[in-house]
Amino acid sequence: MSKIGFVGLGIMGGPMAANLVKAGHEVTGFNRSQPKIDRLVEAGGKGAGTVAEAVSGAEVVFTMLPDSPDVEEVVLGDDGVLAHAAAGTLLIDCSTIRPDVSRRVAEAAAAKGVRALDAPVSGGEPKAIDGTLSIMLGGSDQDVEAARDVLEPVGATIVHVGPAGAGQTVKAANQLMVAGNIGLLAEALVFLESHGVDTEAGLQVLGGGLAGSAVLDAKGGKMRDREFAPGFRLELHHKDLGIVQSAARDAGLSIPLGSLVSQLVAAAVAQGDGSLDHSGLLRQITALNASS
Amino acid sequence: MSKIGFVGLGIMGGPMAANLVKAGHEVTGFNRSQPKIDRLVEAGGKGAGTVAEAVSGAEVVFTMLPDSPDVEEVVLGDDGVLAHAAAGTLLIDCSTIRPDVSRRVAEAAAAKGVRALDAPVSGGEPKAIDGTLSIMLGGSDQDVEAARDVLEPVGATIVHVGPAGAGQTVKAANQLMVAGNIGLLAEALVFLESHGVDTEAGLQVLGGGLAGSAVLDAKGGKMRDREFAPGFRLELHHKDLGIVQSAARDAGLSIPLGSLVSQLVAAAVAQGDGSLDHSGLLRQITALNASS
Amino acid sequence: MSKIGFVGLGIMGGPMAANLVKAGHEVTGFNRSQPKIDRLVEAGGKGAGTVAEAVSGAEVVFTMLPDSPDVEEVVLGDDGVLAHAAAGTLLIDCSTIRPDVSRRVAEAAAAKGVRALDAPVSGGEPKAIDGTLSIMLGGSDQDVEAARDVLEPVGATIVHVGPAGAGQTVKAANQLMVAGNIGLLAEALVFLESHGVDTEAGLQVLGGGLAGSAVLDAKGGKMRDREFAPGFRLELHHKDLGIVQSAARDAGLSIPLGSLVSQLVAAAVAQGDGSLDHSGLLRQITALNASS
Amino acid sequence: MSKIGFVGLGIMGGPMAANLVKAGHEVTGFNRSQPKIDRLVEAGGKGAGTVAEAVSGAEVVFTMLPDSPDVEEVVLGDDGVLAHAAAGTLLIDCSTIRPDVSRRVAEAAAAKGVRALDAPVSGGEPKAIDGTLSIMLGGSDQDVEAARDVLEPVGATIVHVGPAGAGQTVKAANQLMVAGNIGLLAEALVFLESHGVDTEAGLQVLGGGLAGSAVLDAKGGKMRDREFAPGFRLELHHKDLGIVQSAARDAGLSIPLGSLVSQLVAAAVAQGDGSLDHSGLLRQITALNASS
Repeated sequence: MSKIGFVGLGIMGGPMAANLVKAGHEVTGFNRSQPKIDRLVEAGGKGAGTVAEAVSGAEVVFTMLPDSPDVEEVVLGDDGVLAHAAAGTLLIDCSTIRPDVSRRVAEAAAAKGVRALDAPVSGGEPKAIDGTLSIMLGGSDQDVEAARDVLEPVGATIVHVGPAGAGQTVKAANQLMVAGNIGLLAEALVFLESHGVDTEAGLQVLGGGLAGSAVLDAKGGKMRDREFAPGFRLELHHKDLGIVQSAARDAGLSIPLGSLVSQLVAAAVAQGDGSLDHSGLLRQITALNASS
Repeated sequence: MSKIGFVGLGIMGGPMAANLVKAGHEVTGFNRSQPKIDRLVEAGGKGAGTVAEAVSGAEVVFTMLPDSPDVEEVVLGDDGVLAHAAAGTLLIDCSTIRPDVSRRVAEAAAAKGVRALDAPVSGGEPKAIDGTLSIMLGGSDQDVEAARDVLEPVGATIVHVGPAGAGQTVKAANQLMVAGNIGLLAEALVFLESHGVDTEAGLQVLGGGLAGSAVLDAKGGKMRDREFAPGFRLELHHKDLGIVQSAARDAGLSIPLGSLVSQLVAAAVAQGDGSLDHSGLLRQITALNASS
Repeated sequence: MSKIGFVGLGIMGGPMAANLVKAGHEVTGFNRSQPKIDRLVEAGGKGAGTVAEAVSGAEVVFTMLPDSPDVEEVVLGDDGVLAHAAAGTLLIDCSTIRPDVSRRVAEAAAAKGVRALDAPVSGGEPKAIDGTLSIMLGGSDQDVEAARDVLEPVGATIVHVGPAGAGQTVKAANQLMVAGNIGLLAEALVFLESHGVDTEAGLQVLGGGLAGSAVLDAKGGKMRDREFAPGFRLELHHKDLGIVQSAARDAGLSIPLGSLVSQLVAAAVAQGDGSLDHSGLLRQITALNASS
Repeated sequence: MSKIGFVGLGIMGGPMAANLVKAGHEVTGFNRSQPKIDRLVEAGGKGAGTVAEAVSGAEVVFTMLPDSPDVEEVVLGDDGVLAHAAAGTLLIDCSTIRPDVSRRVAEAAAAKGVRALDAPVSGGEPKAIDGTLSIMLGGSDQDVEAARDVLEPVGATIVHVGPAGAGQTVKAANQLMVAGNIGLLAEALVFLESHGVDTEAGLQVLGGGLAGSAVLDAKGGKMRDREFAPGFRLELHHKDLGIVQSAARDAGLSIPLGSLVSQLVAAAVAQGDGSLDHSGLLRQITALNASS
């Protein structure tokens, strides 16, 4: 069993930390708001008053934070994780952030003798609670092996996809494809509706052939019924598409479809739909085609 | 058992007609090139020298033709199917054509007392041979019911999606989504490769989550290995996207993603890749990003 | 002076025919609605009860019709211009239609010994009235020279741009560029407004540099003030962009920007703005970015 | 006459500083490479060994630097302009950078009692040499008035467009429109060429009507002849479109056309054309449509 520090106990981090406790690890958690720390303590963990306290004495440190600047502050900041972590500590950052920031974290960690992995997850709150997330790992073979014990309580699919930053890159590709698949399904639905097709039957055929997708299976029926309770919020997907575009630009890449769907998602958020499920992008496609 | 006329015995129509023979129907087939007729005769069918001969005395007429103008000529033309079909005949057009042409066929058929269904298929040559195509039917409930007996030997999924033209509309939506999903996967692959990700592992994770799709399952590995033997040719998909855009324009619809992917497919064909599998769209995305 | 038949006496054709009368030509006009014929007669022309009557005895026939199917019917139809025109007649089609239809008209004309030019115009109603239209001519050098006498009363800029269909192609390129320039200006305006820029000063600088354009000069101030009285209606521009996309597809071309702006125009029309000036595309870009 | 510090004596900054000397100002310049300082000294200015030396005693400080991080370092850095400028100094930043960075510079300057203007320019090297640049100013009325004396030797068009950052915003809008206008002209040219049009005549007509633009006037003929000597390099335009997209994202804006042309420019740079004139985007559109 490991001594684990966990920074970021929100919607995703909270249940992940609880699952680590359940698996027998000794987890000391920190969060900016006290109630989330209290919940970890109720689950059998310990609370910390500062990042330093959570990190001190830990063999493994998890971070699960909203965005790149948060990771820069909490991990790289003057009073952050790397300022307090002992050499040999394993740092597992589960935040979805820019790949270049993950690479900078890995370099800064290496300079202190800390071993870092980028480990963004997919699956959302339900799989965080069940401990069945998909985890995409960027880092060295050795560090990935060292992390398996503490990843198994939180993830069902744990895949090493390349060196530092590679986990973030795969997560970004995931968000690009998911947004695009939602956008295409939305255009297809509006297309079918405008032609008087029985969309229930239509989606059934589409789902059974080469147009089938996890998006269609998970969201098709709800989109047809205009049910957009989240789920994964459009405004978070918008943030992630910012990462996609930034990473594409850094790599000198042209991704025309990814770029266009990013604009459609930006429009949906601008129109006030940011708190809907990302399948709510359909409302944007509908608005494009609706006389007011 | 029914007396069936079958016009269009190509890559798809040939095996479909053969499956109807195998199921015990009496099939008389016509094609412009004699060898394809000969193959039907070898399979136990009869050959016809003209459309008129294939249609004469038939209770059911199948047509499986390349494009809208072919259907206009073969079905609506002076010496075409409707000129020779008896009242009460069931006309099942399996071609992938513009929905407005299917609606015109249905109207012209009705004026002669012929019952028409648009019945485009998906699944490609392998499923045509196996008799396990997906069939999207547009027409009346009654006519769809009347057609079940002769559709079951050729299709595994037979779904009535709406009135005349609805089958074509669903097929068009299918082609929109498939092209888009291929394009997004291509962008994701190029994105992963440019960042040094292990794409085998990367595709595995992507396929297991919300980014998963039939396209990724069927084509992902081959795209990674740049294997583009058809399968379904890009130039045919290009034709089908022309149908999508035409039907969207007729309905007064804006479909930005569908439109952009149509331009990328057009570019791929312009660059000489029309005879590759449609997953060869990846070459276009790669070319966008490759210094020469 | 020439004997001229003129078919299509609408907003554009009416004043063009009147200018030909004023220049001393003998003009016999036909239109479906009698009042427009009456107006030509008041202006000193003659009225015809049929296309045949307008064409009969004419040395030159002008046609100015809404769209490709109209030209197909009026020129190529059983009782149309070519059925009645004498060999040697010069046919000048000023309609904005698909280049392939213009080429078919030219071929059909040649088969009858009629000399055909495609001669779409730009400049709108005011320049039609002033006789200062821009005219883009497709056809042979000889026929263009023969037409100068009857074109000078209607146009200020008369340019021979290539063989049959070339006039339409240049007109299509014009409509592509104009729509795109409007769309870009609309995005720039929304961008400036969202950042609190003084847009009057901003447009002044933009107009003085490499971002300057006829669109910005003619429409910039009105777009800033949201004045969208036509001018050239969005729904007509939408029709013309259909020609652009069809001609691009026929030529096997990928035009991603042209295609995207076509979708934005389609959305504007779908949203009920078709009767506004085409600069009203700004409303679509604003709607994309406005919370409701 | 003013005492001026000038940091950044490159292709643009060098001739701007020389024009200030010529107008009678006392200019002390700093650049990382000595030869550029030597050139200013030859022109009658003084050389500085550090930013501090250039700024010390100056009433006005100009900065003309490549990109946002350069301005952050040179202006905001520990040993930068603001660390050494006296209260009351007027800081005029002519770099093309992100509006949010200009706003941060203005705030940091205000905290030190320094008055800051963002003052990006357009017109390129020839107008920098002639002292006829267009200058877009963001800042207070008072500071803009105070700057007129030192701006007149370098600019012919000097327009105050709003508060801090507004100059950058207008410059970004300019780069969006210029890139888009080039892209549309490129698509139009390829369209005309593919249809066998006389493009010299075609561009003449297009330039005379509503499709006319400064881009067409300045670049049309050269694009037709595939002459792409810079001029303004594609790779710099690519950088500027990064600013556009970043500023749009910060403002929560969807700009689909700007975003698509950014992807086309990114592709052109990826394909190795970054050192061509930005009109070389035509090569990208041609490549889209060329069989290899």
